[in-house]
This record gives sequence, structure tokens and C-alpha cells, in this order.
Amino acid sequence: MLAIDPSCFPSSDLAEQLDPSRSAFAGSSTISVLPATRQHVAPTFCWTALEKSVAYDQKHQFPRFATPVPPVTQNAVGSKGPTAMVFLNMGGPSHTDEVHSFLSRLFADADLIPLGPLQNYLGPFIAKRRTPKIQKQYAEIGGGSPIRKWSEYQSAEMCKLLDKMSPETAPHKPYVAFRYADPLTEEMYNRLLADGFGNGKGGRAVAFTQYPQYSCSTTGSSINELWKWRQRLEGKATSGTIQWSVIDRWPAHPGLVETFAKNIEEKLAEYPEERRKQAMLMFSAHSLPMTVVNRGDPYPAEVAATVYAVMQRLNFSNPYRLCWQSQVGPQPWLGPQTSTSVEEYVKKGQTDMVLIPIAFTSDHIETLYELDKEIIGESGHPDTIKRVESLNGNPTFIKALADLAKSHLDSGVSCSLQMGLRCPGCKSERCAESKKFFAGPEKAFAV
Amino acid sequence: MLAIDPSCFPSSDLAEQLDPSRSAFAGSSTISVLPATRQHVAPTFCWTALEKSVAYDQKHQFPRFATPVPPVTQNAVGSKGPTAMVFLNMGGPSHTDEVHSFLSRLFADADLIPLGPLQNYLGPFIAKRRTPKIQKQYAEIGGGSPIRKWSEYQSAEMCKLLDKMSPETAPHKPYVAFRYADPLTEEMYNRLLADGFGNGKGGRAVAFTQYPQYSCSTTGSSINELWKWRQRLEGKATSGTIQWSVIDRWPAHPGLVETFAKNIEEKLAEYPEERRKQAMLMFSAHSLPMTVVNRGDPYPAEVAATVYAVMQRLNFSNPYRLCWQSQVGPQPWLGPQTSTSVEEYVKKGQTDMVLIPIAFTSDHIETLYELDKEIIGESGHPDTIKRVESLNGNPTFIKALADLAKSHLDSGVSCSLQMGLRCPGCKSERCAESKKFFAGPEKAFAV
Repeated sequence: MLAIDPSCFPSSDLAEQLDPSRSAFAGSSTISVLPATRQHVAPTFCWTALEKSVAYDQKHQFPRFATPVPPVTQNAVGSKGPTAMVFLNMGGPSHTDEVHSFLSRLFADADLIPLGPLQNYLGPFIAKRRTPKIQKQYAEIGGGSPIRKWSEYQSAEMCKLLDKMSPETAPHKPYVAFRYADPLTEEMYNRLLADGFGNGKGGRAVAFTQYPQYSCSTTGSSINELWKWRQRLEGKATSGTIQWSVIDRWPAHPGLVETFAKNIEEKLAEYPEERRKQAMLMFSAHSLPMTVVNRGDPYPAEVAATVYAVMQRLNFSNPYRLCWQSQVGPQPWLGPQTSTSVEEYVKKGQTDMVLIPIAFTSDHIETLYELDKEIIGESGHPDTIKRVESLNGNPTFIKALADLAKSHLDSGVSCSLQMGLRCPGCKSERCAESKKFFAGPEKAFAV
Repeated sequence: MLAIDPSCFPSSDLAEQLDPSRSAFAGSSTISVLPATRQHVAPTFCWTALEKSVAYDQKHQFPRFATPVPPVTQNAVGSKGPTAMVFLNMGGPSHTDEVHSFLSRLFADADLIPLGPLQNYLGPFIAKRRTPKIQKQYAEIGGGSPIRKWSEYQSAEMCKLLDKMSPETAPHKPYVAFRYADPLTEEMYNRLLADGFGNGKGGRAVAFTQYPQYSCSTTGSSINELWKWRQRLEGKATSGTIQWSVIDRWPAHPGLVETFAKNIEEKLAEYPEERRKQAMLMFSAHSLPMTVVNRGDPYPAEVAATVYAVMQRLNFSNPYRLCWQSQVGPQPWLGPQTSTSVEEYVKKGQTDMVLIPIAFTSDHIETLYELDKEIIGESGHPDTIKRVESLNGNPTFIKALADLAKSHLDSGVSCSLQMGLRCPGCKSERCAESKKFFAGPEKAFAV
């Protein structure tokens, strides 16, 4: 299997990269054979899990976009509403016949998978080659990814809460922008413009990453894509453009921590009381290639912060470890690996184990297929090795999203200081330009 | 330069490893060429820094051990005093003429550096070969390591506080047990026995690691050494032995976090006000070989927890990164590297930087030589790249140690649930036996 090393975005052709009207990937010069084919590749669709999770809230039925927002009339830099709340995520194929286009976009993303000058040729080749295998995995878990429906549900529900919590910025209008599946960033941006934002009328929009922990491969890629389309669609306007700010990370938000903790407690309650305290908690996050870790990507430390915060909330009730899943290919990735760790614990007699996907908020192929079918299904102990529910439509989680958004709207900051700081080993001029745009000159560091 | 891969402690000769009267290292079977020669190798001595740090507390003059403890008379499982408080750390050569014996012990530690069946031959060879270079480094920073004096000062001061805070377990008697320098674990244990603990009279002792974050290479090695000597010196006794408990990690203790945060604020205050918010915080911890990380060592995640807690306390006032220092040899270690990250940020124009040693509480060769002389000294910006003070004799830190000890004494627990859980990839039967002894059967997992 051919896979690719998602190391730094190369800058061999700065002019080309900085011109968002041309292919930002054509200037890449790095090429290496590697692994990232399953890196955050594939949110999935499983009706059983879905129906179970939303049983408490059937009436909402995954509401789509609300009614169109009224035209924006306030001053471009005003803080009043309407406010666009744009959920960023990778997205996933809703049906197996969308797998190929999804993979094609994924292998075209040089922030995730730099293929060098051959990106435009190699990307489609690899995508085509992998499509049947990934289609089969989606077919096994229900036929597609639930991430669009969850994202639209979560953003709409959050906006309803926000309208009450923050009337001064209401109405809040939910949008979703995916990196590799519909609705793409371009579609979202055109919809914003059509809804009355920008076009000389200004208006406020918040890019809200749905990855709690920041990685250049995930949130960074989405932010760079948003910057690209903003430059293409509003770059030449001199005034009245959309005022953007970013919620770029929230690894230890109390509401997020509370949701994880409650889900863990519910899962632990399924063990007989006398065994409950001896069950081991196995936190699992998508791994990163060591090239990305060693470049200074903040993700591993932020995932660890989430884990520690959850364990503090649980009063360290159980032994635990943080492991990393979905490593593929021959190059080194961050470990320990979730799959081998589960095997090793089973060999040592530790068969009461709770798996906790800690770095993704909706179900996806890494939970429904990799954890449930591969790791648990093939462990020999599917009754005592369990997985906690993903956050999906959990009302505590959606309240957490609203709290986060409310704090951000009140703060007036454009993004975190962390987002303004490039990684020490970053070579991507696109990253530098994107940071300068979103963070502003005072808060962009090492650019 | 020959260096060694500190991966898992091998178990090729279980019987030998489990017999603490024989060499526990003779059965090792792994041999690889690598890096660990500077892994927590070398606390150091620098009078200038030392004098500066203790200026506020000159009268104490690093008190040595207090007066001998009265004979232990209470029941062996009683919770009353006297209580021995044993500070565990790696130690370091107090003078350059102790460097050779220090390195010899270090290269004999298969928990840190597994050399296989040739440990007894290769270890002394490498130690002898490296001695002149390391002696030169110690000579450059004052002639030796301050760790003994700091440890004796910290433990004695903490015990004074504890006597007031926890009269029910008083008097508290300070001990220090180093892994590679005097006072060694054997010396400490014999002193305990001579002071009236054990020998049929019981008595309580707390092993208190001075590494805030747990690694099998550091705290794990010290705990295994303590277990070994306990078995040798008290293993055959049927009653009245010392009752041990362990404070095995404290990565996010509020007092620790407060001390770090205050030191950072003090260092930031040295920048002109208009530049202060733009200074970047570079947290630096000793790295681990990827073999250890991938085995499941909890250290990287716990270091990240400390960093996040400190940043929360600082209200995320500045941009920051967590980097890893002291990688040596050809095999892969966890990155990003502190040294190259500083170089890269300087190249990108970020020359206001505060280095924060986040995983060691006293000054040592990695702060006084590597950070101060190599990384800052050779950066070209020694005036704008600064290092925060180490914790050393900081009264806030010593109060934190006392708070930690008080909570532990009140809790009645033998150690954390985390300490009871072996790493998924652990192959060391000695680790398993040590965990069974300290954690007890109910809290030892995957053994």
C-alpha cells in the first residue's frame, strides 16, 4: 500500500502558494512514501449507534440550516448580530459512492499529506487505488459517515442555545465547512455571502473548530483552507468584508471534560461492582507521524491535557493510559499503539478495559470500524472490553459548545495566542500568511 | 560516542531478576547502540546560581539530617509517627572526582539503560570512556552537582512544616535516597534500620519521588531499587517490617504549578513592558527514546499535563510550546528538540524566549550547562533568551511538597492506581514484582 508522509508544507514556490487563485499545492517539493491514508480519514455512518444516541432527542431529527439570516446591516466591525457560527471539521462520505471524491480531496491536501510537485498526479492515483477498500469498511458500518448530520445537528442546537445566552450577538446562524466532503469551505463561504454577510456589508463570523485539540494536520488545514477561500472571494474588497475570528482549540473545556467523564462513568457502571474499580481506562487518539510531532505540532500535548483533565474530574478512580491509534505505513508514528496495547494488556490478564476516543467528537470510521470491529471485535474479549459513546448529540456537549462560543464572543479576541505561533519546524509560508490574517500582526509569532 | 538504548528491562532470566541478592542486571538480553548517556545524567553544582537562589534563606545553610529519630514503638501498621520521609532522585556527583562512580552506577541501571548480558562489562567501559567529557562539563559549571544539598535542604524544610501540619504523624524525619550517587538506596535503608525503623518494630516510611512526572526510567527505576533493597534487608522478616507507601507522581499539584507560574512571571517581568506579551514560553523537559515512549511510558502525557496546568494558571498569557531536550545518539527520541527549536525560532525572528525546565525540581547539568551555556549561550541572543529559576529552595515549592505529603499521609493509600498499572509494552518482571509489593494485590494491574 502506498501512503504518504504528512510532514511540513514545503515552500519551494512561494509566489504560487501565496496566490490563492492558483493551486496552492503545485509548489510542493517533498515526496515520501508513508502512512497517512487513515489519518482522520473516515467518519462513518451507523444507524444503530445513531438511533441509540439520539433517542433522547428524537424531535430534532438533525435539523438542517435554519431559516436564512436577515441581511447584515450593522457596521463591519460591530459586535452585534447576526453572527455566523461556522463548524470546521474534516467531513466524511455520507454514502459509499462519495468515498472516491472524499479520498481525492484528502490526498490533495498538502497540509495533511504533502506529495510534492506530483501531488496533482499521485493524489488521484492513490485515492482511486484505496477507494474499494475504504468503501468496504464504510459498507460494514452502515454505508457512510454520520458526520454531516451530527455537525449540522450540533451547530443548529448550539445556535439555539446561543440565541438565549448571547442575545447581543443574536441571531446566530449555523454553518458547516468540511475539508474533504460536502459542504466544502467554498460552498460554505458562498452561502455566507448569499446570506448577506460581506459584500460591503461586513458581519461577523466565527470559525469554530470541532477538533478539541489543535493539530496543523486537522484544524490547521481547515484554517488554511478558510484563509484561501477568503482571499479568493473577498481578497480584493477594501471594506465591508466578513470579520472573522477563530475558536481554535478547547482541550480542557469543563463542559467537554464533563461529557467525557459522564460517558466513562456510564460505561464503568456496566461492569459488576466488584470489578468496576479494576477496569482500566484506555484513552485513544488518532496518532501523528513523528515528522509532524518533531516539527512541534501542539496536538500530543493538548490531547494529554484533555486526558489529565478528565482523570482529575474522575478523581483518578481507575488506572489509565493514553494510546494512539490508526498508524499505518512503514514510517514511525507516535505510540504506544492502541491496537497492540490492547493485545498486550489482554496477554497480561487485564481484560476489563474501557476505550475512550478522546480527540474526535462524533462517531467516525476510527470508532465504529477500527475500535469496535477490529480492536474490540478481534480481542477475544468483546464483552469486557468496551467503548464509551462518542459525544455526538449529547446535550451536555452541546451546552459546552455554546459556553465556549459565548466566552469567545464576549472576549473579542481573534484567536488564541497559540494559534498565532508557528511550529518551530514549520516551513509552510501558507501557514505564516494564514496566521498573520487571522491572528493579526501583534499576535502572529515566528512568521 | 557510544550510547545506549534505554528500552524495556528484559526478562531473559526471571529467577535471577527476582532474587534481589544477585545481580538483577545479569539476565538482560537486549543490546543496542544509542543515546541515553545524558538522560537525567547529571545534576550539577553552580555556586553562583545556588547563592542567588538561597539568598532569602541564608540561615538554613542546607541543613543536613535532623537529630536521630526516637526508636519506633508503635504498631507496625499504625498511622502514628515517627514517619520517615524518603526523597527519591537520581543524584549527581558533588565533585568532579565522583563523576566516574556516578556514571558507573548509571550504566549499570538496566531500567534506564539495558545493555543485555554484557551490562557488567559494557557499563564500566562506557562509564570510563565518558568520564573525562562529563567531568569537563561539571568543571565548567562550578565543579559538581548541587542536588544532594538541595535534596537534603528540601526534605528537612518540608519535614519541619509537616511536623506542624500533621502532628498525628510527627516527628517526620527526612531521608534522601539517590539512584546513582551518595546517599544510595542501600545507605538510606541501613540508616532507617539504624534509626529504629523495622527490625520487628515496624514504623512508617514514605517514598517521595522528586520527579513530578512519572517515567519508568526515573521514578520507576528508583522504586525498583527500593524494592530490591527492601527485599534484601527485610525480605525474610515475617513481621515488624517498615510499612512503605509511595508518592509516585504529582504533575499538576497546585503548589508545583504556582511555583512554576510565579517564576515565569518574574522572568517575564525582566522584558520591557511593550515586549512582555510577545515573549514565547518554551517549556523543556528531558526527552525519552521512542522505544520507551512507544512501550507506554506515562511521562510525556504527564509533562504535558504540567505544562497545561501552568498555562491555565497564567491565563494563557503568552504563546508557548513544549519541547524535549538532551537527545543523544542515532536512535529516535521524542521531539521537537529544544536546541533546534530555539535555533528555528531565532531564524524566524522570535528572539524573546523564556526557557522553563518543567520536569526537574533542582538545578542540574541540563539546566546549568545544556540550557544556559549551550542553548542560550550559543543562540546569539543571550540577553533576550532567558531561563527561569529552578525550584531549588523556593519556599512556595517546599510548602507544596509539605501539602503533597500531608494529603498522602491522610489518604492512607499505598500509591496511585497509575503506579500499579504496568506499561502495555513492559517486559520487566522486576517491575511487576515491585508493583505487586508497593501497590498490593488489589491495585497491581497487568502484572
